Formats: sequence, C-alpha cells, structure tokens
Amino acid sequence: MKQGETYIRVRYSETDKMGVVYHGNYLNWLGVGRTEYLRELGMPYSEMERNGILLVVTRVSCRYRRPAYYDDLVKVVTKIAAIQDVRIVFRYEIYRGEELLTVAETEHAFVNEQGRPVVLKKTNPFLWKRLQEAWEQVPD
Amino acid sequence: MKQGETYIRVRYSETDKMGVVYHGNYLNWLGVGRTEYLRELGMPYSEMERNGILLVVTRVSCRYRRPAYYDDLVKVVTKIAAIQDVRIVFRYEIYRGEELLTVAETEHAFVNEQGRPVVLKKTNPFLWKRLQEAWEQVPD
Amino acid sequence: MKQGETYIRVRYSETDKMGVVYHGNYLNWLGVGRTEYLRELGMPYSEMERNGILLVVTRVSCRYRRPAYYDDLVKVVTKIAAIQDVRIVFRYEIYRGEELLTVAETEHAFVNEQGRPVVLKKTNPFLWKRLQEAWEQVPD
Amino acid sequence: MKQGETYIRVRYSETDKMGVVYHGNYLNWLGVGRTEYLRELGMPYSEMERNGILLVVTRVSCRYRRPAYYDDLVKVVTKIAAIQDVRIVFRYEIYRGEELLTVAETEHAFVNEQGRPVVLKKTNPFLWKRLQEAWEQVPD
Repeated sequence: MKQGETYIRVRYSETDKMGVVYHGNYLNWLGVGRTEYLRELGMPYSEMERNGILLVVTRVSCRYRRPAYYDDLVKVVTKIAAIQDVRIVFRYEIYRGEELLTVAETEHAFVNEQGRPVVLKKTNPFLWKRLQEAWEQVPD
Repeated sequence: MKQGETYIRVRYSETDKMGVVYHGNYLNWLGVGRTEYLRELGMPYSEMERNGILLVVTRVSCRYRRPAYYDDLVKVVTKIAAIQDVRIVFRYEIYRGEELLTVAETEHAFVNEQGRPVVLKKTNPFLWKRLQEAWEQVPD
Repeated sequence: MKQGETYIRVRYSETDKMGVVYHGNYLNWLGVGRTEYLRELGMPYSEMERNGILLVVTRVSCRYRRPAYYDDLVKVVTKIAAIQDVRIVFRYEIYRGEELLTVAETEHAFVNEQGRPVVLKKTNPFLWKRLQEAWEQVPD
Repeated sequence: MKQGETYIRVRYSETDKMGVVYHGNYLNWLGVGRTEYLRELGMPYSEMERNGILLVVTRVSCRYRRPAYYDDLVKVVTKIAAIQDVRIVFRYEIYRGEELLTVAETEHAFVNEQGRPVVLKKTNPFLWKRLQEAWEQVPD
C-alpha cells in the first residue's frame, strides 16, 4: 500500500469562465486524495480528528500542466513524500487517463485540538507506524 | 429509468465552522445528481452543451432537515418533476443511509448558446422524448 | 435601519464555464448580506455565535432573473421578512446598478451550540428587540 | 504604484470544520488581489480578457503561518515578483492588522483565446510597460 488512488468526476461548479477547472479547486481534490489514502492505510481522517489529531496545512504547492474539463474523470494519486516527528508531506499527481494534469505537494503539522504540535510517534504509535511504512515504500 | 441515484463522499472543503456541510454546497451536489441522471438517460449534459443546448438555472429551493458531516456518504436521488416546452424542473432528495437530509428543486430553461429559449421538442426530439418518458414514470 | 445594503465585487472563482456566476455562489453572497445587516443592527453574527446563538439555515429559495458576470459590482439588499419565537426569514435582492438580478429568501432557526432551538425573546431580549424593530420597518 | 492593497471580509462559506478559513479558499483571495492590482495599474483583467489576453495559472505556492477566522478583515498585498516575455509571477502577503497570515506566489503564462502563448511586449506594449514599471519598483 505505497500509494492511494481515487477517482473524481469533475463538477460543473468547479469550472470557471475560462471553461476549465478553476485552479483553486484542485486543492479540494488533494483533500479527497488524502482522505481516501488515509482510509486505505487503516486510519480514516475523520477518526483521527475524533481522536484529537489534526493535520493542519502549512504549505501547498501546485503545478498545472494541462487543464481539466467539466465531466472529466480524473485520478488523484497520493503518496507520502516525507514524514518527521511533527510534520508530514504528501505528494499528488492528477491524471486524466494517462495524461498528467497536475503535480502538487501539501505539508501538514500534526496538532491537537488546541492547535499545539503533537509528536505522532508518542501520541499514536499505530498511525505513526502505518505512515512510516507507507512512506518507505514510495519509489523514488 | 424513472430516477437517478448517485453517491457523494462529503469533502472537508464542503464543511463550515458549524462542523457541518455549508448549506450552499448542497447546490453543487444537485448539479452532480443532475449530471449523472442525464447521463443515465442517454444524454450527458456535456454532450448537450456541445450540441448547443444549455440548462440555465432559473429557480432553486432547498429544505434542510438534518445536517451532513465530513466523510458522510450521501445519496442524491434525482427525478423530473415537470417538463414543458422550454422549461424543466428537477426534484432531489439527499439521504445518508435511510435518513432524509435535504429536499430540493431546481428549475431550468432550455436555451441556446446565445441565451435564447429553445423549444426542445423541435431542437432535439430524441432528448425531449427521453425526458418525457422519464417524467411520466415518476411516481406521485 | 429597515434594510441593509452591501456591495460585492464578483470574483473570478465565482464564475463557471457558462461565463456567468455559478448559481450556487449566490448563497455565499446572501451570507455576506446577512452578516453586514446584523452588524448594522448592532449584533455582529460572529458575536452572536460567541454568545451561543446560532442561525441554522432551514430553507433557501432563489430566483435568478439575470446573470452576474466577473468583475461586476453587485449590491445585496437584505431585509427581515418574518420573525417568530424560534425562527427568522431574511429576504434579499441582488442588483447590478438598477437592474434586479436575483431575489432570494433564507429561513433560519435560532439554536444553541447543542443544536437545540432557543426562544430568542428570552435568551437575548436585546437582539430580539432590534430584529423586531427592523422587521416592523420593512415596507410591504 | 509598486504594489496593490485590497481588503477582504472573511465569509462564513470560506470556513471549514476546523473553525478557520479553509486553506484552498486563500487562492480565491489571491485572485481578488490580482484583479484589484491590475485595475490600479490601469488595465482591469476583465478588459485584458476582452482584448484576448488571458493569464493562465501555471504554478501556485502558499505558506500558511496563522489561520484567518470568520468575519476577520484581511488585507491582500500584491506585487510583481518577476516578468518575462510570456510569463509573470505575482507575490502576495495576507495580513490581519499587522499580523502576517500567509505568503503566496502565482505564476501565469500570457496566452490568447486559443491557449497559445503570446509575447506581451508585442501584443500589448502598453500593458507590458505598465507591468515592467510596477515590477521595477518592487523593493527587494
């Protein structure tokens, strides 16, 4: 389980007057990719939140190579690019068929409900181990 | 094929600070329901647009009975409530499991790319027939 | 202070591939109109929330007469259409210059942080009085 | 006119269940900052589009230092970080009062309505000159 894959049908509401998906809406899709990937790793993010571990976004970067259009079926591939004590980086590729549309990264801090950083290894060794393993299996 | 059904996983980006789905975002889901329903009826909306027939929204109404939450899997049921020469009304029910969350209606005018009303029966008899049949099969 | 007026510059992100404002995004503007109107009435909604009184949306209806375009400056006029023990209805008109684009209504329940209905007259007589007065001054 | 400044009131619809502005919505604000900056430089983006010059986003990066909350009044400061034949980079800082919340960059290609790159210096020397001047006045 080195990477997650999820499919998204482009919504009309996601387009803009250029006739393509508005660039900001890709960030919503990264969230969908992350949600499904964490679920596959055995720890749904909704459950993480209920357990008091939040993933606060600290950085986003996104490169747009080709546009996506209304009703396209796009695939979001999600991997772990880096994981440290209080921080994790996800990497994403968005495809339409074989065609790479977008490459992105999001960096997150692990925090508790008061917004304080938490050392995941201590707070939730199970989740830490799953994320570590997933990260180690990511091909270069 | 009297009604369409499609499933949507609630996105984090769709929630608001009340902890539930922001009420405006249900309208995006109605669009998803409509898109999938028209596809099942044999006329994808993306194709309709390419053929120069647009569905412009003229009225929306929505009743919110219970909130939806992040990561819920909701079902959008879409029907045709009325169809006339230049106008169509869709009716929607949104469920989480057996629980009815939202009831909505959208009214649309059939227009061409210049925004002029088109009489669907003349412009696209095939689509008109499919929509008529779907409408007639809607139970009261 | 019988009605509120607020101006909104249409954002690129609010348009869709038809080249106009996506119909769902008007609901965000109704929220802006409501926020500014309540502020003018002396009770910012952010403060109401901090005081434990929430306005949960129970119904929305919206009629779209003419489209709004990117970079338009639109005016949202907000009034109170009805107010009862645990319920309030706002009415909105959205203009571009003198031209009426949209007419809408939202109905809300007054609830506490546990989602239980609250009788505003008892819980917050000051706010109740202001809303009552504003409502009575709305012309027919 | 080395930089643009514009104020935005945070909308309820822009928050998420963490109680803060959803990170993806900052990209909409960058668009607002860009729109107002180009207007101040004498070339509204709506006019650029009508003249057949589009700014297609090719890259976005965003660092989130502190969250923004519902009803905050935030200031978007927009500058030109780089400009080349067919490409421009904008840099943004988002503040609440004196407090820096977010730093971002967007890179755009100048393209025509067919999506082909255009050399701005040739296609629109006036706009090119204004952007050049604005860029040269940006302090390091």
